[in-house]
Amino acid sequence: MEELLNKIDWAEILKDIGIISIKLILILIAFLIVRAIGGRIINSAFDKAQQRNHMTPGRTQTLRSLTKSIFSYVLIFILVVVVMGTFNINVAGLLAGAGIVGLAIGFGAQGLVSDVVTGFFILLEKQLDVGDYVTTAGFDGIVEETGLRTTHIRGFNGTLHYVPNREIISISNHTRGNMRALVDIGISYDDNIDNAVTVIQNVCDRIAATNENIVDGPNVLGVQALGASDVVLRVIAKTKNDTQWGVERELRKAIKEAFDEHGIEIPYPHQVNVEKKAAN
Amino acid sequence: MEELLNKIDWAEILKDIGIISIKLILILIAFLIVRAIGGRIINSAFDKAQQRNHMTPGRTQTLRSLTKSIFSYVLIFILVVVVMGTFNINVAGLLAGAGIVGLAIGFGAQGLVSDVVTGFFILLEKQLDVGDYVTTAGFDGIVEETGLRTTHIRGFNGTLHYVPNREIISISNHTRGNMRALVDIGISYDDNIDNAVTVIQNVCDRIAATNENIVDGPNVLGVQALGASDVVLRVIAKTKNDTQWGVERELRKAIKEAFDEHGIEIPYPHQVNVEKKAAN
Amino acid sequence: MEELLNKIDWAEILKDIGIISIKLILILIAFLIVRAIGGRIINSAFDKAQQRNHMTPGRTQTLRSLTKSIFSYVLIFILVVVVMGTFNINVAGLLAGAGIVGLAIGFGAQGLVSDVVTGFFILLEKQLDVGDYVTTAGFDGIVEETGLRTTHIRGFNGTLHYVPNREIISISNHTRGNMRALVDIGISYDDNIDNAVTVIQNVCDRIAATNENIVDGPNVLGVQALGASDVVLRVIAKTKNDTQWGVERELRKAIKEAFDEHGIEIPYPHQVNVEKKAAN
Amino acid sequence: MEELLNKIDWAEILKDIGIISIKLILILIAFLIVRAIGGRIINSAFDKAQQRNHMTPGRTQTLRSLTKSIFSYVLIFILVVVVMGTFNINVAGLLAGAGIVGLAIGFGAQGLVSDVVTGFFILLEKQLDVGDYVTTAGFDGIVEETGLRTTHIRGFNGTLHYVPNREIISISNHTRGNMRALVDIGISYDDNIDNAVTVIQNVCDRIAATNENIVDGPNVLGVQALGASDVVLRVIAKTKNDTQWGVERELRKAIKEAFDEHGIEIPYPHQVNVEKKAAN
Amino acid sequence: MEELLNKIDWAEILKDIGIISIKLILILIAFLIVRAIGGRIINSAFDKAQQRNHMTPGRTQTLRSLTKSIFSYVLIFILVVVVMGTFNINVAGLLAGAGIVGLAIGFGAQGLVSDVVTGFFILLEKQLDVGDYVTTAGFDGIVEETGLRTTHIRGFNGTLHYVPNREIISISNHTRGNMRALVDIGISYDDNIDNAVTVIQNVCDRIAATNENIVDGPNVLGVQALGASDVVLRVIAKTKNDTQWGVERELRKAIKEAFDEHGIEIPYPHQVNVEKKAAN
Amino acid sequence: MEELLNKIDWAEILKDIGIISIKLILILIAFLIVRAIGGRIINSAFDKAQQRNHMTPGRTQTLRSLTKSIFSYVLIFILVVVVMGTFNINVAGLLAGAGIVGLAIGFGAQGLVSDVVTGFFILLEKQLDVGDYVTTAGFDGIVEETGLRTTHIRGFNGTLHYVPNREIISISNHTRGNMRALVDIGISYDDNIDNAVTVIQNVCDRIAATNENIVDGPNVLGVQALGASDVVLRVIAKTKNDTQWGVERELRKAIKEAFDEHGIEIPYPHQVNVEKKAAN
Amino acid sequence: MEELLNKIDWAEILKDIGIISIKLILILIAFLIVRAIGGRIINSAFDKAQQRNHMTPGRTQTLRSLTKSIFSYVLIFILVVVVMGTFNINVAGLLAGAGIVGLAIGFGAQGLVSDVVTGFFILLEKQLDVGDYVTTAGFDGIVEETGLRTTHIRGFNGTLHYVPNREIISISNHTRGNMRALVDIGISYDDNIDNAVTVIQNVCDRIAATNENIVDGPNVLGVQALGASDVVLRVIAKTKNDTQWGVERELRKAIKEAFDEHGIEIPYPHQVNVEKKAAN
Repeated sequence: MEELLNKIDWAEILKDIGIISIKLILILIAFLIVRAIGGRIINSAFDKAQQRNHMTPGRTQTLRSLTKSIFSYVLIFILVVVVMGTFNINVAGLLAGAGIVGLAIGFGAQGLVSDVVTGFFILLEKQLDVGDYVTTAGFDGIVEETGLRTTHIRGFNGTLHYVPNREIISISNHTRGNMRALVDIGISYDDNIDNAVTVIQNVCDRIAATNENIVDGPNVLGVQALGASDVVLRVIAKTKNDTQWGVERELRKAIKEAFDEHGIEIPYPHQVNVEKKAAN
Repeated sequence: MEELLNKIDWAEILKDIGIISIKLILILIAFLIVRAIGGRIINSAFDKAQQRNHMTPGRTQTLRSLTKSIFSYVLIFILVVVVMGTFNINVAGLLAGAGIVGLAIGFGAQGLVSDVVTGFFILLEKQLDVGDYVTTAGFDGIVEETGLRTTHIRGFNGTLHYVPNREIISISNHTRGNMRALVDIGISYDDNIDNAVTVIQNVCDRIAATNENIVDGPNVLGVQALGASDVVLRVIAKTKNDTQWGVERELRKAIKEAFDEHGIEIPYPHQVNVEKKAAN
Repeated sequence: MEELLNKIDWAEILKDIGIISIKLILILIAFLIVRAIGGRIINSAFDKAQQRNHMTPGRTQTLRSLTKSIFSYVLIFILVVVVMGTFNINVAGLLAGAGIVGLAIGFGAQGLVSDVVTGFFILLEKQLDVGDYVTTAGFDGIVEETGLRTTHIRGFNGTLHYVPNREIISISNHTRGNMRALVDIGISYDDNIDNAVTVIQNVCDRIAATNENIVDGPNVLGVQALGASDVVLRVIAKTKNDTQWGVERELRKAIKEAFDEHGIEIPYPHQVNVEKKAAN
Repeated sequence: MEELLNKIDWAEILKDIGIISIKLILILIAFLIVRAIGGRIINSAFDKAQQRNHMTPGRTQTLRSLTKSIFSYVLIFILVVVVMGTFNINVAGLLAGAGIVGLAIGFGAQGLVSDVVTGFFILLEKQLDVGDYVTTAGFDGIVEETGLRTTHIRGFNGTLHYVPNREIISISNHTRGNMRALVDIGISYDDNIDNAVTVIQNVCDRIAATNENIVDGPNVLGVQALGASDVVLRVIAKTKNDTQWGVERELRKAIKEAFDEHGIEIPYPHQVNVEKKAAN
Repeated sequence: MEELLNKIDWAEILKDIGIISIKLILILIAFLIVRAIGGRIINSAFDKAQQRNHMTPGRTQTLRSLTKSIFSYVLIFILVVVVMGTFNINVAGLLAGAGIVGLAIGFGAQGLVSDVVTGFFILLEKQLDVGDYVTTAGFDGIVEETGLRTTHIRGFNGTLHYVPNREIISISNHTRGNMRALVDIGISYDDNIDNAVTVIQNVCDRIAATNENIVDGPNVLGVQALGASDVVLRVIAKTKNDTQWGVERELRKAIKEAFDEHGIEIPYPHQVNVEKKAAN
Repeated sequence: MEELLNKIDWAEILKDIGIISIKLILILIAFLIVRAIGGRIINSAFDKAQQRNHMTPGRTQTLRSLTKSIFSYVLIFILVVVVMGTFNINVAGLLAGAGIVGLAIGFGAQGLVSDVVTGFFILLEKQLDVGDYVTTAGFDGIVEETGLRTTHIRGFNGTLHYVPNREIISISNHTRGNMRALVDIGISYDDNIDNAVTVIQNVCDRIAATNENIVDGPNVLGVQALGASDVVLRVIAKTKNDTQWGVERELRKAIKEAFDEHGIEIPYPHQVNVEKKAAN
Repeated sequence: MEELLNKIDWAEILKDIGIISIKLILILIAFLIVRAIGGRIINSAFDKAQQRNHMTPGRTQTLRSLTKSIFSYVLIFILVVVVMGTFNINVAGLLAGAGIVGLAIGFGAQGLVSDVVTGFFILLEKQLDVGDYVTTAGFDGIVEETGLRTTHIRGFNGTLHYVPNREIISISNHTRGNMRALVDIGISYDDNIDNAVTVIQNVCDRIAATNENIVDGPNVLGVQALGASDVVLRVIAKTKNDTQWGVERELRKAIKEAFDEHGIEIPYPHQVNVEKKAAN
């Protein structure tokens, strides 16, 4: 036995231990340096972003902690793999094996990652805020909550839509500036166009004077179409946000009443009937 | 023979056995530590989640045991691979080989994983509860059962829809707050708009006073459209959940009867007929 | 020659053979243990599942033998690879090579695996039984056969639809509880709504008393819509499964006859014609 | 030179050759055994399948030779790789290199594999036979040829559709049992429903007695709908395969003539015209 | 220096060179054998295919040279990789590196490969010939050119459609046998069906006697539908290819004229007008 | 120290340097040979292609320089990898690492490669030229510019469509030969068909004589349909490219005027009104 | 101990350190050279591109700094991997492990890369500028902001659409040259076509003389269609960008008034009524 022990090359073992120790120390130092530098870069980046984009501190804080924890998890993962590799444990095989399971789960969880990435940018670029009226992913409504995974949109009939962020491709935000009110009015082919335009424009001017929600117009654009039974005139206005429907309703009522007053007809569908006797 | 045995380097064999033994012990210790820590993290995470989100203990228990068993399976898998690697059995090749079969199965079973991941988040975020009236994956109905793989939705005609969770992208939950009742009423172009509005508003006020399901309104919004044969007025109300259809039905009946009383016409489609003799 | 043979290191060869033999024995033992344990786990799992879900013994048997044969094939595959690896035959390269062909075939056969995985869960969760009337994968009909790869659905016009299980995403099963009968009746704008409702409700009560297929109702819900030419009333009932169409037919006939009796009109489409002379 | 040759370790070379020879022999023996066993398994599997499914010998033969040649190609491929690996030719690298080209081709040829896999199962499960009238992949018609890659369907207007098997997802086979004949008849709102039903049922009974293609019925189901201008009655029958259209035509003609005889009207679309003078 | 050179183990270098030389020679011999055998197999396969499928020599030649050049490129690629591997140049790494670029290009060029594979089979199975009238990939028209990458289809309005072969999934070839002519004729509800059928059948018999493009029929099938305003009778015939439209036109004209002669009406849309006085 | 230096095996170092040098020289020679040969092959291929396809020198030049620069980049890439591999720098690991980033970018840039590959073939096969009127990728218009990445199409309303080449799947080129003019004319059911055909054919012959844009026809094909209110006759002509709309307009005007002259009616939609007294 | 230390082969350690040092220095030099050369190439490429494409300096600057930072990140990544590889830290395994996580994230972040690549080319090729009126990704409107990730489009009703660049496949830019004004006018079948054309052309000439937005025309093209109730004449003009709607409105109004003046009718829909007595 002793003889056997003597044959062991203690020098090489010592050398191995020394090399591994040095490696471990170097790895730890590198790890700490990278973590410190990474943390500072993230902090300063978010400080700058906050100043530039006037983000609320709450929102900045959410994004910052998400970024930091992703950064930490990645670093720790790398540390573990490198340390295991140092002890010659077959990390590659282990990881390849885990890859099979991982890939299957990855495909399933892919949507989750996609949700978070999209959610991150929606928050960062402030494409929607709580309270905005938006159209996205086929849903219309008021945003009630914006999270990293889902956005809650309250539809107009009271339904609450839970939309995963990956479904939010394009966002149509209806709460980002003045809106347009548009009213199309059909008049009879027998009516005088200039006369009708004058009547409508008078109505428009009166409303523009009294309704403070109107920013620009309303104005008659002209003959939008020669329809099957009517000559269509288009009226257009620019209004304050969220008041466009009210302005449109007011315009419709006022124009209808002015037409009644001036004897201008909003025609029903017309049809020319050619009478013929039945042959048999 | 003896001579041959003598040539064997018993020292190296001993060293090998020693190294392997130490490795195995280290691996086992690491395994036990990781399992204990992981279990605690999962427990405390669910305890916190339960407090924060007011989840029922039953639901928390389901999610917690799912999480723990996934965690255990992954750990055991890693343990087996690492131990086999220690005995120099060609794990990488074995796993690569299994990968071919695994990938094929993985593609097939991908839906299953997707179901469970989605199901997990639906349960966690409480996007739907048993008894909710929801629209999702093209189906309308009352949720009868929510599982990790499938959700059962009872349609209104009695059909039971089995929906795999991966099909549940967005959820429109109609049982999450007050709902809106909306009635569009067409009046004749010959009727006075203000008069009709007054009649409707009176009906609305009377119903608002007697029907306790109404939370806000109903109110006449104004002229919603100048239709082909009628001037469309819109009435809108906010009601308690699930009572919106009843309120709409009551509003329709009451407005119709009030119109009859006040001689206001709900017009049929109109057409102007221009008579012409047949040329030949 | 002899000299050459003497140079051969017989000791090492012997050692190699010894190591390989020990490895093979260990592998076989591990294989047998795993097979035995796996078999027992599968058996007990299916026994439990059978008790809990009240599955028929035949269905349980089908699923159990599928599970066992998959388990066996996987074990044998692993055994072969491990044994080949023990003899240092380049399994990894071989498998990688096979992977190219395998991947191409895998993409093609992916549907097959998907069929079996989906079929397994359909059988396990009893989402459809032979004889159920279902809507799935765009087909309507009675299930004639459920297999691991295809489901046969007999359409109502006699066509037999062969549906691969992977096409069966959501299942709408119409044979899972009571169904709803729904009849919409339009009455004239000139008729009294309360009167019509009374007449219909009387009919409903009479039918409810005589038709034992009706579970609940039928009842008049109220004014469902103010249509272009009629006031639409909705009648709703809950019936035993598969009798809803018969009940609807009986309701329609009885209401029509009661209306005739009481002089209530089911109106044709109305149109107001405004006569105008041709201008030219 | 000679000195150099002396330095060569002939013993090791001899040993290498010996080892390689033994390996080759073992590989060949394994190859032959596997081929023999595989061939027998395939043969017996197809013999059993033929007995169980009553397949024609021709079809069985086609599937069997396809299975056998796939099996042979795979075995030869494995043999080549293993033998090359034995000579230490870098198979893995070679295969990885081929993999790049192979993957590109594989994506392109993927459809081909998919065709053959689907074709195999269509033949095996006898989902369609030459001469069947089927609907699949958006085409209607009579199957003229079923192959492993394409299926030829002769449309009713004479067009020949070449359908790759991978396009054949679900098959609706209209030649698998009795078919349903269905005729919807509208009667006037002024006609008596019971009277009309009696007339139609008499026609049905007379046809049922004379037309031997009818298996069950025809019977009047009842009031299918209260249409805009007519009360719709539904007649349904079960007929021998491929005769349903003839039966429907006969039913339509006979019911029309019986209605003429009994003065029951099949009404034209109705409209109520409310006459109004033009206001202006 | 000299001392250093002496230390070099020339024997090993010589051995290495020898081994490499032998390897190279073996590889070249294997390469030549495989090329010769492969070439012969391709030749004989195409000779057989030509005889069996009656393909034109030109088409066979195109497919044969494509097959041969693919075979050559693959062999040369393998040769290069094997030779480089023999010199221990890191082929695997090189190829893996090339793989990244290759995969990116591969995705882009994937369509190209898909084109050629599909084109190969279209030519081989003669699914379309120049001059055929086909419907495929959403285009209707006469095939002007069939290539390995694109097929040119001349639409009926003169447009030339360039269709990549991968877009050609199913082919509907209208030049593969007799076609069907189908004419639906509506007669009045007041006309006698038997009378009308006799008149039409007489017309059909007269045309069948004079028009040599008709292969079978035309015959009156019977009452195809009880339409809103007419009883629809269906006439069907089998005609020579490409003459179906001419036959249909002739049938329509002849039936219309025969109806005029016999006083059978092809009715206009009917509507029943119920006159009502305006209430207000 | 000196002692240590003495222990260094200078011979091996020298040998290593020698081997590396020889390798480098061989690699460079191979590189230069391949580049020269490749360049010549590309040149001659394009020279041939230019002669065969009558391509303009400019277009040939564009394609040639693209091909050459791709070839050069690939060669340089291979050179770098091989040289690095010679110095034992871990290229494989480096490349695998780059692969992760590369794959992510590759997916993103995949569209770019797809654009260039498609663009290459569009230019090579001359599927569209600047000035052609084409329909592709859902856009109609005149091609203004064809590039390797995008094609610019000027729509008829003046809009400029930027279409990435990968969107150009099939191309419908309307500037590749004679076009068809098609006019459908409805005549009254009371008019004589033969008479109308004669009138139209006379008009056609007169136009054919005077309009030099007409290549063939126009001719009356016959009764295209028996419409709801008219008998539809079809006139067809073959015209020079881009003049089909003009010819159709001329035909329509001339036929209308000839019909007026001969008293043939182009009928309005017909309806038979059956008058009925309101029942109540 | 000392004895053990003596056994250590200090020479080899020294040699290792030397080799590593030389490697590191070579790597650094290569890194610096590549960075310098790459930077210059990027600079000169952008300078040329700016001159050739007349890009604004701001836009050039944005693209240049993006290109440079991508180049730097890639270089640093390569540097780190190479240096780690030099210290024999298992980079491959580490990277493969990271690959699993990376791939999952990559799939999620793939959209982000796609956004930037597409955005880069949109900016480079100037397919849209701020202020352009475009149609892309299903949205219509004025471009308000073009970024590397998203493009902001202000719709005409005031909505702000946030469109990720990857959604921008084809761009229809309506601000790239003259636009077309098109007016279709229906005249009565009883009116003389030549007369109507003269009247319209006169109107067109008068407007062309006074409206300076018109570049070419307007002209009457001829009879566009023989409609159900009218003969449709088409008027077409080329206008300055963004004035087409104004020109169309002016044309419609002027033609309508000219028609009134000359007694040309724009006809209502016509219908021939054949009166028939109700049979029963």
